[in-house]
Amino acid sequence: MNDLRMSEGARPLLDAVIKHIAENVDPITEEYFRLGEGRADRWSHAPGQLELLAEAKQKARDNGLWNFFLPNAETGEGLSNLDYAYIAAELGKNPLASETLNCSAPDTGNMEVLERIGTPEQKERWLKPLLNGEIRSAFAMTEPNVASSDAKNISTSAVLEGDEWVINGEKFYISGAGDPRCKIMITMVKTSPEAEPFKQQSQILVPIDTPGVEIVGPMRVFGHDDAPHGHMHIRFKDVRVPRENMLLGEGRGFEISQLRLGPGRIHHCMRSIGAAEKALDMMIDRALNRKAFGKRIVDLGKNMETISRARIDIESMRMMVLKAAKAMDVLGNKEARIWVSAIKALVPEKACQIIDQAMQVHGAAGLSQWFPLSEMYVGQRTLRFADGPDEVHHNVVARAEVNHYQNSNDRQAATARATGGRMFEGP
Amino acid sequence: MNDLRMSEGARPLLDAVIKHIAENVDPITEEYFRLGEGRADRWSHAPGQLELLAEAKQKARDNGLWNFFLPNAETGEGLSNLDYAYIAAELGKNPLASETLNCSAPDTGNMEVLERIGTPEQKERWLKPLLNGEIRSAFAMTEPNVASSDAKNISTSAVLEGDEWVINGEKFYISGAGDPRCKIMITMVKTSPEAEPFKQQSQILVPIDTPGVEIVGPMRVFGHDDAPHGHMHIRFKDVRVPRENMLLGEGRGFEISQLRLGPGRIHHCMRSIGAAEKALDMMIDRALNRKAFGKRIVDLGKNMETISRARIDIESMRMMVLKAAKAMDVLGNKEARIWVSAIKALVPEKACQIIDQAMQVHGAAGLSQWFPLSEMYVGQRTLRFADGPDEVHHNVVARAEVNHYQNSNDRQAATARATGGRMFEGP
Amino acid sequence: MNDLRMSEGARPLLDAVIKHIAENVDPITEEYFRLGEGRADRWSHAPGQLELLAEAKQKARDNGLWNFFLPNAETGEGLSNLDYAYIAAELGKNPLASETLNCSAPDTGNMEVLERIGTPEQKERWLKPLLNGEIRSAFAMTEPNVASSDAKNISTSAVLEGDEWVINGEKFYISGAGDPRCKIMITMVKTSPEAEPFKQQSQILVPIDTPGVEIVGPMRVFGHDDAPHGHMHIRFKDVRVPRENMLLGEGRGFEISQLRLGPGRIHHCMRSIGAAEKALDMMIDRALNRKAFGKRIVDLGKNMETISRARIDIESMRMMVLKAAKAMDVLGNKEARIWVSAIKALVPEKACQIIDQAMQVHGAAGLSQWFPLSEMYVGQRTLRFADGPDEVHHNVVARAEVNHYQNSNDRQAATARATGGRMFEGP
Amino acid sequence: MNDLRMSEGARPLLDAVIKHIAENVDPITEEYFRLGEGRADRWSHAPGQLELLAEAKQKARDNGLWNFFLPNAETGEGLSNLDYAYIAAELGKNPLASETLNCSAPDTGNMEVLERIGTPEQKERWLKPLLNGEIRSAFAMTEPNVASSDAKNISTSAVLEGDEWVINGEKFYISGAGDPRCKIMITMVKTSPEAEPFKQQSQILVPIDTPGVEIVGPMRVFGHDDAPHGHMHIRFKDVRVPRENMLLGEGRGFEISQLRLGPGRIHHCMRSIGAAEKALDMMIDRALNRKAFGKRIVDLGKNMETISRARIDIESMRMMVLKAAKAMDVLGNKEARIWVSAIKALVPEKACQIIDQAMQVHGAAGLSQWFPLSEMYVGQRTLRFADGPDEVHHNVVARAEVNHYQNSNDRQAATARATGGRMFEGP
Repeated sequence: MNDLRMSEGARPLLDAVIKHIAENVDPITEEYFRLGEGRADRWSHAPGQLELLAEAKQKARDNGLWNFFLPNAETGEGLSNLDYAYIAAELGKNPLASETLNCSAPDTGNMEVLERIGTPEQKERWLKPLLNGEIRSAFAMTEPNVASSDAKNISTSAVLEGDEWVINGEKFYISGAGDPRCKIMITMVKTSPEAEPFKQQSQILVPIDTPGVEIVGPMRVFGHDDAPHGHMHIRFKDVRVPRENMLLGEGRGFEISQLRLGPGRIHHCMRSIGAAEKALDMMIDRALNRKAFGKRIVDLGKNMETISRARIDIESMRMMVLKAAKAMDVLGNKEARIWVSAIKALVPEKACQIIDQAMQVHGAAGLSQWFPLSEMYVGQRTLRFADGPDEVHHNVVARAEVNHYQNSNDRQAATARATGGRMFEGP
Repeated sequence: MNDLRMSEGARPLLDAVIKHIAENVDPITEEYFRLGEGRADRWSHAPGQLELLAEAKQKARDNGLWNFFLPNAETGEGLSNLDYAYIAAELGKNPLASETLNCSAPDTGNMEVLERIGTPEQKERWLKPLLNGEIRSAFAMTEPNVASSDAKNISTSAVLEGDEWVINGEKFYISGAGDPRCKIMITMVKTSPEAEPFKQQSQILVPIDTPGVEIVGPMRVFGHDDAPHGHMHIRFKDVRVPRENMLLGEGRGFEISQLRLGPGRIHHCMRSIGAAEKALDMMIDRALNRKAFGKRIVDLGKNMETISRARIDIESMRMMVLKAAKAMDVLGNKEARIWVSAIKALVPEKACQIIDQAMQVHGAAGLSQWFPLSEMYVGQRTLRFADGPDEVHHNVVARAEVNHYQNSNDRQAATARATGGRMFEGP
Repeated sequence: MNDLRMSEGARPLLDAVIKHIAENVDPITEEYFRLGEGRADRWSHAPGQLELLAEAKQKARDNGLWNFFLPNAETGEGLSNLDYAYIAAELGKNPLASETLNCSAPDTGNMEVLERIGTPEQKERWLKPLLNGEIRSAFAMTEPNVASSDAKNISTSAVLEGDEWVINGEKFYISGAGDPRCKIMITMVKTSPEAEPFKQQSQILVPIDTPGVEIVGPMRVFGHDDAPHGHMHIRFKDVRVPRENMLLGEGRGFEISQLRLGPGRIHHCMRSIGAAEKALDMMIDRALNRKAFGKRIVDLGKNMETISRARIDIESMRMMVLKAAKAMDVLGNKEARIWVSAIKALVPEKACQIIDQAMQVHGAAGLSQWFPLSEMYVGQRTLRFADGPDEVHHNVVARAEVNHYQNSNDRQAATARATGGRMFEGP
Repeated sequence: MNDLRMSEGARPLLDAVIKHIAENVDPITEEYFRLGEGRADRWSHAPGQLELLAEAKQKARDNGLWNFFLPNAETGEGLSNLDYAYIAAELGKNPLASETLNCSAPDTGNMEVLERIGTPEQKERWLKPLLNGEIRSAFAMTEPNVASSDAKNISTSAVLEGDEWVINGEKFYISGAGDPRCKIMITMVKTSPEAEPFKQQSQILVPIDTPGVEIVGPMRVFGHDDAPHGHMHIRFKDVRVPRENMLLGEGRGFEISQLRLGPGRIHHCMRSIGAAEKALDMMIDRALNRKAFGKRIVDLGKNMETISRARIDIESMRMMVLKAAKAMDVLGNKEARIWVSAIKALVPEKACQIIDQAMQVHGAAGLSQWFPLSEMYVGQRTLRFADGPDEVHHNVVARAEVNHYQNSNDRQAATARATGGRMFEGP
């Protein structure tokens, strides 16, 4: 459990990903974003952008890196979460990297779900073009009118009428639904309001162009709309989809959710650490290269201690994320969920702090479009809600802790507890 | 010094301002902002907006409230800082209130400076239309290429050639310069690089339409551009203004700065407290009206303690700002500058925390355009740099503290010290 | 409400108290504590100590300062809480000052209670010698076996048998009960377990030498036992006191508690601020007079900012405590209890932080007996539980806030709310 | 570098240590401390105490566990730091465990130094009885009159007169020097005040009974004196020791210090984590078993979040300490010193916070002698100064970070930096 090394077998893949980013992605990144600047129509790609991406994607295919994230369909074998964590740390350094390898959120989660529990027809219709990078997808869960931190609150209803599910409700923060390439949404709906709490929800496939699906507009986070990806506000009004669009079965929505949350959070947390690293680098750069009151900023006040604390926090977070990934490999998603909640509650909050401190060292310019810091901050601040607010994850960790305590009545258990046994199975 | 009541004489003015806002400003506010939404040309007012304002301004004139902030030109008498602080707290509650009374930043500071040290010609040319609300103005100080937290770093140069000053340099975060009504900038320039450090800078009047003044574009703060007011990035390239545009005299820039900073900071801090109040109100409202896991959000976890701490912090800040205002009235701007730095370092940082906690209680929606919280956060975050970053103000306070300690060598002084004598002259 | 000045009438008393401390108490303080050092019998006064005190007490009597805290028995007039707060700040500077003026805790609270609700016999028997400084007293409330933060939990029972109350139970942290001069305890007991929750408790007079009262030993706080005053652990085993020792009446224990808590907390908080001031002074002194790595400690790292934040916090706390005292004067104890809870939750926690930072600046010596910092820390840390832990007080503030919000349904109330109206009635 | 597992070879040793503690140490612990209670002569062991220890020590010898910490004198082979870290976590759970295995501080450090650089005579005279557990030792470095955080400040002088060094100066916080079995002190002295800064200091052997060595008394930390071990205040007045008592050579004091600091800090940090674990256990226990306001304390306010944050912090710290131990094994003490400073700055500060929160959950009793929390807090608070205050360690980390940044001028280095390369050499 404490062997947090990447496996020897995965090292060549990591090297290939690093090489791919350096040779095929880094060189196009600046141009890609320059093309997108100042467009009147924010909700499409600028001419040339998709071509740049296509080229890089082709190179990934040529190098056998396309869809590397996906387990072998026959053997079920694939990258371990720990190995993936190391690769995710690399992907986090370039904002285009994931897409060129077809492993952007939320597509990976959607593909994994379809791969594991889709019917042959569902796979043919949606998984295939996703795997080919021809379309993109969304995951429609969060709702504006209820506290979705408690997923049992989800209220968008799906009612079976004949051979069709009729869906009514409202969702928001649906990431990626602004992209014109987004064609399908896995949508969390309430199908069985009379069932027991954890059996009321289902997940269902809703093509985005189904009549009745209205994309009201983007959610703007601190003013950023993240176009053309977007975090969209969507209304469902008598949206009708065929009965067979249901995933896995009625009332099994929570079951499906268990499949997707773990690895995605590892990936997110590693990207958060990447953002914190970048903020620390920028902080040091600025602090070394500006002078005030006759001294470099780095030599003023608490700035050195701020740098040290940021480094210590970053390394602590890195070790914890690796440990959580390992826990998923060793213990399985269910047992490891406490570790996953621990890093979800730990990492984005601390990343926000580090980025905020980097802003403070930059002065007012650090808040502006001249530096990526505010966009990074907004991203991390949003993550403190994605897949549940920090408070929900702290509650998961605390309940596990308390339960473990209550179940430990003999000496052995007490010893285990004293060594952190509930999360940490020994040396 | 501890009588922090509003004066009896100023009470009718406060009542009149409250009445004015309730009757003349609140009713137009929603329409004003609705008119401005979704415009392609963000850098002008929408048709109808200025008319709405004009009407409210006329009512303020009719009620004798116009320019209430300005001391009587003949007697020098005017509102005390303490009385103004109470009124500022009211102004902070409506974003249009200040403008309808002609007391928006940075116009008030500019008018005060012109009133006190302008020549008759300068007053006729610029103060008069400002007092009439016909034009608006900016204060151009901060520069992108130096740490302007140390104002001695200001490097935009002004060189006398014949009867003209020739100005070259770059400024940013010039608030209000995006407004098409903005006609004049009081600009901090370096005129005497060889002089002793505090005599190198001057302040000079630069009409914004002078050839060579290039408004490069807006600084966007966390993505917000605050159009059409704007915080602009401006280049000065061989900008020529007449010799008589110099204010007060060459090398007296810092002297002029002393005139403007105090009351403005009181005003800003009171508005910050208003923002924190609003955030706390929103936090309670949301926490009472959402349920998760079978409970109201207010009854979950640490939320009650968060509410209590916010209230305690707000009241502490309010008392400190009133005390600083009183210190300005009693001790004068110079002696009171430690109090002013204290509130400048205290208030915006805590206001940011309270707004951030309100966001957390709101869930992801709290970050979006559906609530004003993110815009409020951005405003407070920016204030942590305006007129110097927190760190500079903490240094002012700490140096005063240390100096006082060093100067206290007898028993009496030690007693004074123990009672907080340096900031607090007794009961 | 915002006139926080001391009244003119009370100024001579403040001056007299300051003079008394300087002339009669400061000169004996060092000798007093020197006499007490290294004694085998920690639970009595050393020869000479009480004589020193007696002399200072006599001088206080001669100067008309004795029992100044007590309202005039006939007119009911006395010091306002605000005036008392200013005097308490002075008393906080010398650890013997309060006793020489007969206003030590918990005697003042006990005397106030007896004065207001004691029978003539109770006053003759106990109030008179207390007012004369002949005996001392304790207030026995907190219990080890229940969470006494919830006073309804108090479980020490008193059962009427004939003409006697028979008391059984256990108390701890009974301050002052270690002093051999302590003769009487006002004791909180449960008399009516069947009554409604707030009518179950009573307060009763228990002479400390009553058979069955066992002083088990001192509570040591971080190792300090505060001998000979002491915070004692006491068992009551079939302790019999006459029926007429009951105060005010059966089931009226909570009612009596309301009488004592407010002013005592003001006094405590002002002393806490005094401790924070002293810690800040010591921090600066050490930071100026030590060198490491070629610099004075004050010039290293974050120390200047620490000094500034301490000063700002101290002034904020001082204003809040004065405001709470004023609220008690203006609104009465009941309405002002929110303010009192606010300062109780605010002040000791922040005082702990400031003292801890002073320790850090002192290095390891700061934790030792060479400096009073650790004893000061322990005192403040304990105050975070006295009269209820911080959490209970935050809950009082938050509930008031939420209730106020819920009761505000019209525009006027909303305005009041936005100005902090629930705690703050206007300018 | 990220393989943080214990080595297979060391597992039997760990198991044996766990068994030893369970069978031979835990059963005598309560009696040992009971024997020591309430003694008039605090500075010796109570009758029976040493006998209990001797028995447990003999069992350790019998089981081959005695001196397990020491590298093989001939091959130089020994436990890796990582393996030792796992064992240290176990030792941290029982306060007598280390001594029964002859691996108490500061003896281990002293023995390691003597083993590595002692002359045959020095080894015969001092190392041998130490290895046999016949005597104990101290390390005399910290001085009261200078900021010893900067070891160059050490001012106790040693001057060669004939064949003797004559030592004059003052030391404090000399741990273990209160124990009557302590016979020898390794003492840091200034021998060459004219040499370059890092060559001025030497380390020399001073038998504690040498004439001129005066043990002034114990330093009491928050009132605790930790008798009979003690943290002593010692004066050296014309103390004469033979020339050959010098270790390694004149001016090589800093060189020797490098040998001892790393493993000791790992050991300390693991014990700190043990203390934090214990505090968390106690916090949960109390929170589950007390009720207030009709709820278990664990269900009130922020307590669940406090528990979660404590658990997350503890696991983060554990991973960081294991990583630092591994860094010492892989990179050597010099390169790994940044990791060691990182954990030294991280762990005791956070352990203090967790213990303080446990106290808060316990109510006032948590501060008293009824629970070990205050003693645990004091221990951790002191560690924030031992081997240098937090600030010095943050400075080490920050300087490494800044230097690394400055030295990275090419792409490869930047990549390394972005992955945390300076502290973290890859997957």
